[in-house]
Amino acid sequence: MYLLSELNPALISAIKVKMISDRMRWVYEQHVQPCLVELFGTSLFVFVGCASVIENVAASGVLQPAVAHGLALAVLIMVFGQISGGHFNPAVSLSVCLCGGMELLRLVPYILAQMCGGLIGASLAKAICSTGSYDTALGGAIHPNTTDLTKATQAEVMMTLFLTMVVCMGAVNSRTRSPWAPFCIGLAVTANIFAGGTVSGACMNPARAFGPAVVANQWTHHWIYWVGPTFGALLTVTFIRLLFGDQKTRVVLK
Amino acid sequence: MYLLSELNPALISAIKVKMISDRMRWVYEQHVQPCLVELFGTSLFVFVGCASVIENVAASGVLQPAVAHGLALAVLIMVFGQISGGHFNPAVSLSVCLCGGMELLRLVPYILAQMCGGLIGASLAKAICSTGSYDTALGGAIHPNTTDLTKATQAEVMMTLFLTMVVCMGAVNSRTRSPWAPFCIGLAVTANIFAGGTVSGACMNPARAFGPAVVANQWTHHWIYWVGPTFGALLTVTFIRLLFGDQKTRVVLK
Amino acid sequence: MYLLSELNPALISAIKVKMISDRMRWVYEQHVQPCLVELFGTSLFVFVGCASVIENVAASGVLQPAVAHGLALAVLIMVFGQISGGHFNPAVSLSVCLCGGMELLRLVPYILAQMCGGLIGASLAKAICSTGSYDTALGGAIHPNTTDLTKATQAEVMMTLFLTMVVCMGAVNSRTRSPWAPFCIGLAVTANIFAGGTVSGACMNPARAFGPAVVANQWTHHWIYWVGPTFGALLTVTFIRLLFGDQKTRVVLK
Amino acid sequence: MYLLSELNPALISAIKVKMISDRMRWVYEQHVQPCLVELFGTSLFVFVGCASVIENVAASGVLQPAVAHGLALAVLIMVFGQISGGHFNPAVSLSVCLCGGMELLRLVPYILAQMCGGLIGASLAKAICSTGSYDTALGGAIHPNTTDLTKATQAEVMMTLFLTMVVCMGAVNSRTRSPWAPFCIGLAVTANIFAGGTVSGACMNPARAFGPAVVANQWTHHWIYWVGPTFGALLTVTFIRLLFGDQKTRVVLK
Repeated sequence: MYLLSELNPALISAIKVKMISDRMRWVYEQHVQPCLVELFGTSLFVFVGCASVIENVAASGVLQPAVAHGLALAVLIMVFGQISGGHFNPAVSLSVCLCGGMELLRLVPYILAQMCGGLIGASLAKAICSTGSYDTALGGAIHPNTTDLTKATQAEVMMTLFLTMVVCMGAVNSRTRSPWAPFCIGLAVTANIFAGGTVSGACMNPARAFGPAVVANQWTHHWIYWVGPTFGALLTVTFIRLLFGDQKTRVVLK
Repeated sequence: MYLLSELNPALISAIKVKMISDRMRWVYEQHVQPCLVELFGTSLFVFVGCASVIENVAASGVLQPAVAHGLALAVLIMVFGQISGGHFNPAVSLSVCLCGGMELLRLVPYILAQMCGGLIGASLAKAICSTGSYDTALGGAIHPNTTDLTKATQAEVMMTLFLTMVVCMGAVNSRTRSPWAPFCIGLAVTANIFAGGTVSGACMNPARAFGPAVVANQWTHHWIYWVGPTFGALLTVTFIRLLFGDQKTRVVLK
Repeated sequence: MYLLSELNPALISAIKVKMISDRMRWVYEQHVQPCLVELFGTSLFVFVGCASVIENVAASGVLQPAVAHGLALAVLIMVFGQISGGHFNPAVSLSVCLCGGMELLRLVPYILAQMCGGLIGASLAKAICSTGSYDTALGGAIHPNTTDLTKATQAEVMMTLFLTMVVCMGAVNSRTRSPWAPFCIGLAVTANIFAGGTVSGACMNPARAFGPAVVANQWTHHWIYWVGPTFGALLTVTFIRLLFGDQKTRVVLK
Repeated sequence: MYLLSELNPALISAIKVKMISDRMRWVYEQHVQPCLVELFGTSLFVFVGCASVIENVAASGVLQPAVAHGLALAVLIMVFGQISGGHFNPAVSLSVCLCGGMELLRLVPYILAQMCGGLIGASLAKAICSTGSYDTALGGAIHPNTTDLTKATQAEVMMTLFLTMVVCMGAVNSRTRSPWAPFCIGLAVTANIFAGGTVSGACMNPARAFGPAVVANQWTHHWIYWVGPTFGALLTVTFIRLLFGDQKTRVVLK
């Protein structure tokens, strides 16, 4: 029988290296990679979103932003969802977390990653668009098209309620979960922009609002895009936890 | 051997509570939750639908309502279909019921829930849209764009025939059922609005017609949107029961 | 031992009735129902297609016909494909048949059913559309938008080659077959109309051309929509049989 | 016991023929068919793409090219992907190859096939479009809409990064691979054209740029569509190999 101390020191050292490297890989894949993916995906989403607003052709109304945001989001959730869940939106992270689809610990890192992603995406959009269009479109920053801020806020609440309901029912709640949730989420964004794009800009996403607000320095009524989506996400959680969730998700009548 | 009467009264009481709570959960999940889901889903559908009509950009024709109605419906059926079937439309409930896809007992509660949902959705659309657009668009209420009411009614019959045929063949009839039925149903609505949106408004849904009719008090030719869809749904049932159904669904040559 | 002649005549008669009814059901499901489905599906497809052309809004170009034709076709193939294959197009039936996806005996009944469907669909479109739009759009009849008929014919050949290639590779050839073929086929039609709609009308379907040609009595250059699609379908068959088919489908190097 | 030399010479010859024919079939299916499919698919893609640009209706902006390119690509990848992978784009082949999804040996034949496909597709588009539209649209050749070539190049880099990221994460990287990758790839192209179509033309594909450049002899700033996509593809490879890949694909922390 060999004592551990009798083992070849080189072997011991090799085992230690292997253990540390396994541990590092685990930490990377469990904690670092998801945040990187949220940052990267939000960058691409906000890049495409802002550019589609800046380069929009007026005659077709909100068609271009509606389709560009929706498809970019659907595609990014499809290819990155297995790693991070594919939120790319603080309001989505909040509602998924409170519906039991993500540990609470991840919420703050995800939201920070999404905010950084928003900044990068908005900068990239600035880097490719002509200065003229960029200035006219206020850098793709979201702003209400109405002077009635109550209406704009209510619009953001309702549309975020729709969006986060699709996320939480389609991707979290076991009974109604489906593999097509990424397409559903993207297409819900498209439908919402067609519904409320000319009211409040149909943002539904604080990170999408924050990035171009910083880069283009456009802060008019910016609070709407934090208050509205947060309240919409909380409404979704309330509805699912009380009424629409399955036995595991519901907190009453279980 | 213990007699039931010898059991600890506290235990008996606990068993009773458990039985009652199981029973209440069953009743809730079987009967209450589906109706709530029909109400909620119809609210969101009518909200997005009305808002997309009210905020429509004339230059792109019916594109905005066509895509918004279709995608909102597809997405809602996808995420709520497992609970209630995802009808959100009295004509759909009628045809599904008569094709054998739903117990007759559910028909009236579903239709009532859908009517309430239509009212809520239309009110929510009023709450977010600017008064000017709301009044111009008659609150998103459906009305014929032609003076020939026969044409408008025939259009509603034909389009509802198409829609309910897709629903009953894609989601009820065993031989042709597919997991992509929700997308098929939504996209059938989009195709129909592109076909007949400028004739009759391409409603195909009494709840979608009823909500904004009440909220905006617009009742011109409102009966078309009850008669047309009902007749279209009955035509679908006739075709499926006599010709297109599988051995189980067909009533002849079985 | 009982002789057959000793059996109760009523029983014999019941057995005979059962055998005849089984045989009738088999004949119905194998031979009659598929043709009825082709007729019905082509009616709905041509109805939506013609109406989308008649009610088109000029400003958005071919968008409305492109999306309406594509989605209506995708949805109809999805819900009726299990019964008849969901061709709704003589050029598709021809190419599927010659690639080994359908018995030759069905070809003529299918094409006749599709022609009838085209007539019915075009009549239904006439029944719902206002006379003004109907006359302006020549009843949705397809006609070249160019005076150079060679270009129009080549366009029909190329687009039908694309469409039937998607059908035969996506739904017939075993190696590349996929359950999403119905969506692929519909979306190929949409892409083709965006590509060649303003050249030749992007018909790719003799039944779609024939129906409104009869109903609106518009026969200008009608032959293009028979020659082009037929030649395109034969090109597809040539490519698949010689080059792209799997071992079973290919006639060389097997 | 029979010696081989005693066998019937006719039998030996038959065996030899069978072995040669098996070998030829293998070579054909493994090496020739994929290249033919890349050539054919790129032809159809570039044909539809160029025609959609040449026949574009100005009022709807980039809608027509965006949807036509995206859907044509999605559909072609869906039906040909099982044979060749469905790249139809040298930048995609480069990134897939460097991410480990294709042997290096195939890269050059694939790119040559794609270039030939681009030429054929552009010629076919010329063959069907009216001379007037063809000349106005420069034959569908891609060119920057801005005088700031840095912006155009950055736009191509970013959009190709998005596109090839979707390809490599959705179709190569095991952990995130999905059967809907073909749709994701096509829809990413649509989203990108909506984002950057009015900046750089949103090419993302040297073969798409090369074909019409030769056929219409339009070489203004043509280098952008080689440099941008190549650099974008390399960026994707860097991100996936260092950060987003799974344990097998990543080169660090494995």
